[in-house]
Amino acid sequence: MTPQAAYDELIKKCKEISTLGSAASILHWDQETYMPKNGVAHRSEQIGLIARMCHQQFVDPKIGDLISAAEGSDLVKDPESEAAANIREIRYEYDKATKLPNDLVEALAKTTAQATPAWAEARKKSDFAMFVPWLEKVLDLTIKKAEAIGYEGEPYNALLDTYEPGATVAQVESAFAGLRKELVPLVAAIKDSKKKPDESIIMRSYDVEKQKIFGESVAAAMGYDFDAGRLDITTHPFCTGIGPGDTRILTRYNPNRINDALFGTMHEAGHALYEMGLEKEKYFGTPMGESVSLGIHESQSRMWENQVGRSKAFWVYFMPQAQRIFREALGDVSIDDFYGAINYVKPSYIRVEADEATYNLHIMLRFELERAMTKGEIKPKDMAGEWNKRFKDYLGIEVDKDANGCLQDVHWSSGLIGYFPTYALGNLYAAQFFAKAKQDMPNLEEDFKQGNFANLLGWLRKNIHRHGQRYRANVLCEKITGKPLSHEPLMTYMKAKYGEIYGL
Amino acid sequence: MTPQAAYDELIKKCKEISTLGSAASILHWDQETYMPKNGVAHRSEQIGLIARMCHQQFVDPKIGDLISAAEGSDLVKDPESEAAANIREIRYEYDKATKLPNDLVEALAKTTAQATPAWAEARKKSDFAMFVPWLEKVLDLTIKKAEAIGYEGEPYNALLDTYEPGATVAQVESAFAGLRKELVPLVAAIKDSKKKPDESIIMRSYDVEKQKIFGESVAAAMGYDFDAGRLDITTHPFCTGIGPGDTRILTRYNPNRINDALFGTMHEAGHALYEMGLEKEKYFGTPMGESVSLGIHESQSRMWENQVGRSKAFWVYFMPQAQRIFREALGDVSIDDFYGAINYVKPSYIRVEADEATYNLHIMLRFELERAMTKGEIKPKDMAGEWNKRFKDYLGIEVDKDANGCLQDVHWSSGLIGYFPTYALGNLYAAQFFAKAKQDMPNLEEDFKQGNFANLLGWLRKNIHRHGQRYRANVLCEKITGKPLSHEPLMTYMKAKYGEIYGL
Repeated sequence: MTPQAAYDELIKKCKEISTLGSAASILHWDQETYMPKNGVAHRSEQIGLIARMCHQQFVDPKIGDLISAAEGSDLVKDPESEAAANIREIRYEYDKATKLPNDLVEALAKTTAQATPAWAEARKKSDFAMFVPWLEKVLDLTIKKAEAIGYEGEPYNALLDTYEPGATVAQVESAFAGLRKELVPLVAAIKDSKKKPDESIIMRSYDVEKQKIFGESVAAAMGYDFDAGRLDITTHPFCTGIGPGDTRILTRYNPNRINDALFGTMHEAGHALYEMGLEKEKYFGTPMGESVSLGIHESQSRMWENQVGRSKAFWVYFMPQAQRIFREALGDVSIDDFYGAINYVKPSYIRVEADEATYNLHIMLRFELERAMTKGEIKPKDMAGEWNKRFKDYLGIEVDKDANGCLQDVHWSSGLIGYFPTYALGNLYAAQFFAKAKQDMPNLEEDFKQGNFANLLGWLRKNIHRHGQRYRANVLCEKITGKPLSHEPLMTYMKAKYGEIYGL
Repeated sequence: MTPQAAYDELIKKCKEISTLGSAASILHWDQETYMPKNGVAHRSEQIGLIARMCHQQFVDPKIGDLISAAEGSDLVKDPESEAAANIREIRYEYDKATKLPNDLVEALAKTTAQATPAWAEARKKSDFAMFVPWLEKVLDLTIKKAEAIGYEGEPYNALLDTYEPGATVAQVESAFAGLRKELVPLVAAIKDSKKKPDESIIMRSYDVEKQKIFGESVAAAMGYDFDAGRLDITTHPFCTGIGPGDTRILTRYNPNRINDALFGTMHEAGHALYEMGLEKEKYFGTPMGESVSLGIHESQSRMWENQVGRSKAFWVYFMPQAQRIFREALGDVSIDDFYGAINYVKPSYIRVEADEATYNLHIMLRFELERAMTKGEIKPKDMAGEWNKRFKDYLGIEVDKDANGCLQDVHWSSGLIGYFPTYALGNLYAAQFFAKAKQDMPNLEEDFKQGNFANLLGWLRKNIHRHGQRYRANVLCEKITGKPLSHEPLMTYMKAKYGEIYGL
């Protein structure tokens, strides 16, 4: 078999596995939207079966043979070529998938399936001790997973790489260290500032039907194509890229807060624009048709949510529309007051409710604690104490109960240790990309004021979306911005924004 | 391998194939409800892949070996046992699936994929000649299919058996002959009658939202469990039994006709009650957890739609509720007038719009013409003329154009020759089962007047639903009613109903 024939066969198999996997995406979407409640048991049978079939087909030694036959051939001569990128990333995924012994995969699935309801119960009772034995079990299996995958330095490198291929503890640590140094005092200064926006503006009465219409209008203005997607209601908002021509977003509405659904919709639409910008007609089912990493994906959602949606220029265009739709709530509100309210900063317990500034502190805390836990420096039983101590240092408030502290996130019970950093990486990448976009397009702010987001979207498509996995995240960052990932663009952006709003 | 071990393995494999296939049911449901329009190409890839995988897994010679190992053992000693029924029906499906050569299956798929849009175009232009070459191709392949499956007597027996296992041309012909003899004069008498209900009542303005609420209320009263299903809007109404705990129905609303959605919802809910009554928790994925045949399935939908929904007793209970909801349209209407209007009989061109009485004439016509076509007695090119001639005989009206004649149905272009009779068999079974149910439960009409449909549903569950495929349709009919299928119960029912309404 020639390398080209092997490569063609490999791509065909990958596309077929992805097509099957994309059926499970619809099953999941349906489960979170329209499925009748008694369908849940059969639904998990269906999703479990498809996941098993996809895994079995992918770890087939024939796939390994095809990769080997394509590797080292002329196909990979140009490392930036489509074939080289596909072969490199399929190899990476194949090795990861085949390195984990079946009994470990099963033990992790079984343990986390039991740990998750145990965590929910512990959180409900706000009793961390109840969760400790489960955290110990999950941690133990997670370390075994890291050992099976292999790593340099410390086990956390293997875990991080699972979610953010190519990222290392050293890189994350360096970016976070710079961020921490400047962000902690910024948040403290905001807290002490006398000048405060009126947060109550966003907590007036906002009719849900009107929120939906406004949110869809904003998503459409961003470039979200409703012929290739739809917006539905769910409990935990998400975006799912099912396949060519079908990328769906989901949100939830709070009739007494305009923020949640509005920025939630922009966030998910940001993810969706990335999925829609991948060249799936051509590359679906191969790395060239997939997003780079969780961090890069999050950079897209956060940029649209924050750098765009929480900018003043955006509201120069959208405020009159919002005032016509929400006449009673916003009729008497100035752009400046609304802009202040949607950028209100207040240290609080819960990560998913955190504002743009304090959010990253929540992530840094988790990164440090997870890492220490995988190195054995913090025992699961001591986690609540450690959490509360550092939380006070970073956010300046005392944790009142475990449910508001180390029991708040589902991640550990689900076995997702190493996942959290991707959220903050997303914020860092977003700021760095956006600073470069502004440099490349000095009229960007003016565009926003006219309701024109096509130039930004075009820039993202050209520089990020259309490349699929041609470049790893760190390479992509250097290619686009000329520099490695840094905390500086994010801090520059935040200092300017909050400096104005809080008169610092 | 012991017969028991082979049987257990066979059942496990069948359940797995069905679980995979049930994912395609959701994909299809999604396609007909919420899928964005650009998702259509990828959706056909997904559905096609799953269909191929299910087929490949099922025609695996290992399945044949397992069936052979279980057959002829003690497992099938009692032919009515669960194992015997499963083995018998899996053998039947396996033989059917393996008898068709791959190139024939592919040729059929390709030809019908092209014939369907060609038919749509021909229907649009009302030009039968355009469709003739496609009908010739489909007919040719359909005959080859019948030859591959094998048959006694004539090819139509093989085709009919595909959709209604165990049914024969002789049986259908005999039932239809009796029906034709009495139905044609009945329809003529109705046409000539001086007494006519006021049909315009059902064509007033009926708010769609209110229709939906009323339809859901009726479905719930019938016993449709909304925790295990849902009602959505679609273009071509259907019911889909996805798996345990998930059976969905779909309808469409006409704001100027209450009939369409109301009886459409009852019809689909009737199908759904059958699906919900199968013991899927235990038997899903095996013949014991599946419906007997299309004809028996249709008997359930038609019974709820006609024998229940178009009965006067039903409206004794529901008319006051309908009058409160549709105050303007129905406030001044008596039960008798409404009952007359929903039972209005008028010979018309289009099968899917036909009333309860003339509907069966449409089917008989198709059965005769299809059968003659497969015997070579009618050539595709002569079909329009033959159609129009017989239509005049049966329904007393001249076909004005092919779009209203032999081009109206999608079936032939889809390769579904042999399918039509199952619709009329459904009507015959419905009447025969319902007559027995009334005999077993003399208070049934009184129940309906109280809005109590639980006794009827219980009877259907006990006699039909819970048996799955334990009995073939004709055996089931004899078991329940003590007689083979006959036209008499349907004619007795129609003569009584229309005799009163039309004063015959």
